[in-house]
Amino acid sequence: MESETTYQLLDGKQTSADIKAELAVEVEKIKAAGGSIPHLAAILVGDDGASHTYVNAKVKACELIGFKSSLYRFDASVTEEELLKKIEELNNDPDLHGFIVQLPLPDHIDEQKIIEAVAPEKDVDGFHPENIGKMALDLPTFVSATPYGIMQLLERYKIDTVGKHCVIIGRSHIVGLPMSILMGKKKNPGNCTVTLCHSRTANIKDFTLDADIIIVALGSAEFLTGDMVKEGVVVIDVGITRVEDNSKKSGYRLVGDVKFDEVAAKSSYITPVPGGVGPMTIASLLMNTLTAAKRGS
Amino acid sequence: MESETTYQLLDGKQTSADIKAELAVEVEKIKAAGGSIPHLAAILVGDDGASHTYVNAKVKACELIGFKSSLYRFDASVTEEELLKKIEELNNDPDLHGFIVQLPLPDHIDEQKIIEAVAPEKDVDGFHPENIGKMALDLPTFVSATPYGIMQLLERYKIDTVGKHCVIIGRSHIVGLPMSILMGKKKNPGNCTVTLCHSRTANIKDFTLDADIIIVALGSAEFLTGDMVKEGVVVIDVGITRVEDNSKKSGYRLVGDVKFDEVAAKSSYITPVPGGVGPMTIASLLMNTLTAAKRGS
Repeated sequence: MESETTYQLLDGKQTSADIKAELAVEVEKIKAAGGSIPHLAAILVGDDGASHTYVNAKVKACELIGFKSSLYRFDASVTEEELLKKIEELNNDPDLHGFIVQLPLPDHIDEQKIIEAVAPEKDVDGFHPENIGKMALDLPTFVSATPYGIMQLLERYKIDTVGKHCVIIGRSHIVGLPMSILMGKKKNPGNCTVTLCHSRTANIKDFTLDADIIIVALGSAEFLTGDMVKEGVVVIDVGITRVEDNSKKSGYRLVGDVKFDEVAAKSSYITPVPGGVGPMTIASLLMNTLTAAKRGS
Repeated sequence: MESETTYQLLDGKQTSADIKAELAVEVEKIKAAGGSIPHLAAILVGDDGASHTYVNAKVKACELIGFKSSLYRFDASVTEEELLKKIEELNNDPDLHGFIVQLPLPDHIDEQKIIEAVAPEKDVDGFHPENIGKMALDLPTFVSATPYGIMQLLERYKIDTVGKHCVIIGRSHIVGLPMSILMGKKKNPGNCTVTLCHSRTANIKDFTLDADIIIVALGSAEFLTGDMVKEGVVVIDVGITRVEDNSKKSGYRLVGDVKFDEVAAKSSYITPVPGGVGPMTIASLLMNTLTAAKRGS
């Protein structure tokens, strides 16, 4: 039987560009009103290539929309104490609205201790336990970049979530767990019946076949296949994995946790990889920074 | 077709008594070692009858097992400022390991502000957002009384939870939401595939009929009926409602969220109401207080 479903892409690249354009307008308004320009700082430790790339992209995005940005670089040999001192300084800097410590950190530094040292009201990464607790309790907070980005995509594409069965695959603290909390909240987007699946789930297909919305955040290339989903499903693919591909100049291609062609054929909406959830993360960070600036002023 | 299933009661009254006896032994050990006796304080505001009953039961339980307890009573007219001052004092009292502010508070006091004023390391009620966040992140914390009590019941009755489908009905911040987080964790008890259902869930019976474990926390008398569950299910009933009953001297009886006889006939394990989850809550509070005392010493 042929399927004639036409799916719509949840275009993270475009949505992220829209958000940045909106934020640039906000900055102009703040300037016109003589308010203080949103100011984001990043702490970068060591020489990890990916970390450099991420931080540079964040700094560049700030410049693009007119936010102030600061970058503090430390050698990989920095002590925990020095790092804590810098965090304390940034916590108390009245000119700074939010800051992030780019992870991962070198092994000799207690990452959780660093995360908890950031003042919750400047924790625009949303990693502090207090902010995660506030998210769970539906209090004003900073939701971390990936979950916030997914919620933005659902909202801006006006995906109908109320009373839908949302199946989340993967229980990471960064994506799966917060998404399971957010999608069940009495809000829009939200108000879903939420099932959280993971490595110990038996018969995962029974759950995915029943799902109206599937969010996959496993990091397992092309895990979700066409036979696992029903017609009309909305699919959010958080995974991104390099797989060997000799037909490409680079020798690899990027794939998500979803076998795209198969699943897209049955979907109503689906995120591409790349260009779906990924580009939303920086937009989320910038939105959190604006929120921090507005609260502070 | 007749059902011959014999169910086992998850006896909260007995389990709570067991825990208290264990805690009394712990206190003796601490005394013998010259350590500091766990000390719990309660702040009680106004004349609400139920609040008095709860607080008195907590104080009495402390005395019974040898904990120190303190009770601070305020008139309903107490200002928020006075209350915050007392909380600050208790936060800084080196002789006190944990304290609670009995809720609800009078309307002129911002309950959330009070909750957040309690130092997380003394928040044995587990209501502070930081502690809820730490629960979500699986960091050392205080889990609040009802969820902790349910986890204790599952653990002590050695209920097999790994890979089971746990359906939770009700998304309150006090029970449903934390249970949904705890049951999905990579722990034992835990490691369930968790579905969180609520008022906006469509076809709730489809979910409950598939469930291996059902936790009902709706506050809706006899909501879960026999036709909604499968043979062998484990049922935790958190509800407790007074319903009129002229055959009783008092004119009422207490019922849970589960139509007990019908559901019990198909269950492997089930909590009674009363005598199931209810009695576990004070035991949880005492366990948290012991934990606080051990951390502090």
